[in-house]
Amino acid sequence: MTIYLDNAATTWPKPESVIQAMNQFNNLIGSNPGRSGHHLSVEAGRIVFNTREILAKLFGISDPLRIAFTSNATHSLNIVLQGLLKPGDNVITTSLEHNSVMRPLRELESQGIELTIIECSTSGQFVDTEKIRKLIKSNTKLIITTHASNVTGTILPISEIGKIAAEYNIPYCVDSAQTAGILDIDVQKSHIDILCFTGHKGLFGPMGTGGLYIKKNLEKKIRPLMFGGTGSRSEFEIQPDFMPDKYESGTLNTIGIAGLYAGVKFITDIGINEIRKKENFLLTRFINGISDLNKIILYGSQHIEDRVAVSSFNIKDLLPSDVSLSFDENYGILTRPGLHCAPSAHKTIGTFPFGTNRISFGYYNTVEDVDTVIKAIYELSNK
Amino acid sequence: MTIYLDNAATTWPKPESVIQAMNQFNNLIGSNPGRSGHHLSVEAGRIVFNTREILAKLFGISDPLRIAFTSNATHSLNIVLQGLLKPGDNVITTSLEHNSVMRPLRELESQGIELTIIECSTSGQFVDTEKIRKLIKSNTKLIITTHASNVTGTILPISEIGKIAAEYNIPYCVDSAQTAGILDIDVQKSHIDILCFTGHKGLFGPMGTGGLYIKKNLEKKIRPLMFGGTGSRSEFEIQPDFMPDKYESGTLNTIGIAGLYAGVKFITDIGINEIRKKENFLLTRFINGISDLNKIILYGSQHIEDRVAVSSFNIKDLLPSDVSLSFDENYGILTRPGLHCAPSAHKTIGTFPFGTNRISFGYYNTVEDVDTVIKAIYELSNK
Repeated sequence: MTIYLDNAATTWPKPESVIQAMNQFNNLIGSNPGRSGHHLSVEAGRIVFNTREILAKLFGISDPLRIAFTSNATHSLNIVLQGLLKPGDNVITTSLEHNSVMRPLRELESQGIELTIIECSTSGQFVDTEKIRKLIKSNTKLIITTHASNVTGTILPISEIGKIAAEYNIPYCVDSAQTAGILDIDVQKSHIDILCFTGHKGLFGPMGTGGLYIKKNLEKKIRPLMFGGTGSRSEFEIQPDFMPDKYESGTLNTIGIAGLYAGVKFITDIGINEIRKKENFLLTRFINGISDLNKIILYGSQHIEDRVAVSSFNIKDLLPSDVSLSFDENYGILTRPGLHCAPSAHKTIGTFPFGTNRISFGYYNTVEDVDTVIKAIYELSNK
Repeated sequence: MTIYLDNAATTWPKPESVIQAMNQFNNLIGSNPGRSGHHLSVEAGRIVFNTREILAKLFGISDPLRIAFTSNATHSLNIVLQGLLKPGDNVITTSLEHNSVMRPLRELESQGIELTIIECSTSGQFVDTEKIRKLIKSNTKLIITTHASNVTGTILPISEIGKIAAEYNIPYCVDSAQTAGILDIDVQKSHIDILCFTGHKGLFGPMGTGGLYIKKNLEKKIRPLMFGGTGSRSEFEIQPDFMPDKYESGTLNTIGIAGLYAGVKFITDIGINEIRKKENFLLTRFINGISDLNKIILYGSQHIEDRVAVSSFNIKDLLPSDVSLSFDENYGILTRPGLHCAPSAHKTIGTFPFGTNRISFGYYNTVEDVDTVIKAIYELSNK
């Protein structure tokens, strides 16, 4: 028996409807959207549009064409960071970011872009939102933060950060890799100018899908990362300058997008708050189950409401990789040890370079799953 | 009944085994490869490696790790063009290129990179390979050509071009979007230093897959297009500098790659020459069937051996878009009219700005499909 507790890496299993949607695309449609004009190509285009539409509705975006599809959140983040920032610009971010933000930023730093990194607390929390005001400079061209840490699960106060960014008229970009489909996101209410999301985590789509929302007119300041055929303005050898085509060169992962539609539909049918409630219930049971153990070090906020269902912990005197291996071999529990592609976050909470064990619950996990992993931790910590 | 003759946009249907492989991944594995270390993540990594391996074998590449996965050929081409060329460099290409090459090159031209475009003949042929010698300059840093035109089907003499490039020690990049899986490609024999391919055409994989082969050590000269988590060297905030991780930031389209494996397996099981033979047979029957018609203008070489199974034609006094619409509505024949994202190729053959009708055969097409489209053309041209 296998207990999958690695939902922060990718959710699994996917809803049955996701697999069905992909099979249906494969069997009945199969064509390249926006390319050929025949009825199956048009049908493929309709699926792509419907997916933009259901995502727009999920994120409070009024115009679905403000969403461009990408291959993952990293792709979206690279479009924004490399496309918007120029040498001499300042960008503000946090010490909790994943390498999908830190690596492009370090590369840009080497090209003369100035980074301001807000240090978060050792419990992995973003403590003082007002501090941002003091960090904003005349050359600050972007504020970018994760919505929730992939290491500690800490939720950042994006609405408060967005409000400050809006006051200063600085674009605010949110990396929702760990939250889209799990927390309520409304780009209007939270003053989010750019939203980067991945399809294969909380949105229940397949790997290879992702996207990017850009506020109206802001795309004029963001160069494309790739150039190529878009099926539009084919008479020109220059890239179209309008959304979403500007950022969608090359054939889209249409079968993946068909699956992503079904994933988002699954979420909206159940209700995002129900998903959150279930994941919180599992996380609470887990935290309560292990927090009294002597040898356990738990990271992240004590308040469940401040977190998504990601939990990092260590067992004293045991390496995360050994714990994870034992989980897998002796209990069939699948987790992820180490640095989780987020060295900065681990430095923040003091777990660099060995990292932590990370358990990440998903909608399909059960009480029995939680109890099995608690039992495993008991046994490992008493050895 | 639907007759799909748009295989140059994407092949359809896919082999049943491709769909099965994707379902199997979805149902039994589902995990993120190279990230977590648990047994299902390792299994996902194994699928990714096996796909590199089968592709390497197909293309005569000795080390599978020289292949990086991308989301499509456009992505691969952008990595090469934007990553390799610097202002002041010269690049040699042809007038037959798709916008996946021309648009990045026009963008680079605006940044101070010099383009040399070899004009091809009005029949869409690359006539004088030796001419390349005269065009090579001291600042020529890349020669890039398509392997076959997506408009006329013309095959370019890549081995001859590669030989000249090797003599001058200039990297040669081939865009195999229309040929991978259809023509025999051997990077060693043809002196190909960089091979860009897409997964969803001749290789029978799903949309959203593609890749990039780079000759040993040449990656040192090619900057990554994206930066981010790779599941490797996670302790560093700088991008790994080795293949394939350097170009594989963010979660891979693993389910698509599982499908791509099955697509390539299908090809190697049948034998690439059998596929080529069948497609040539269909193309020959088609060309013979319509070439005597008065109102037909056929583009591309008269010699079937110089072509892949893509045929562009026009019917006098009829717009391509009208012909294509009539095919679809009255005969259930799906084709692609217009410029096919290749305005330069259409200028070369004199069909800009209205373009042509394009029929592209695939392995699954039948003699009946060919005869139906011939009949349709007869009827339309006699109206």
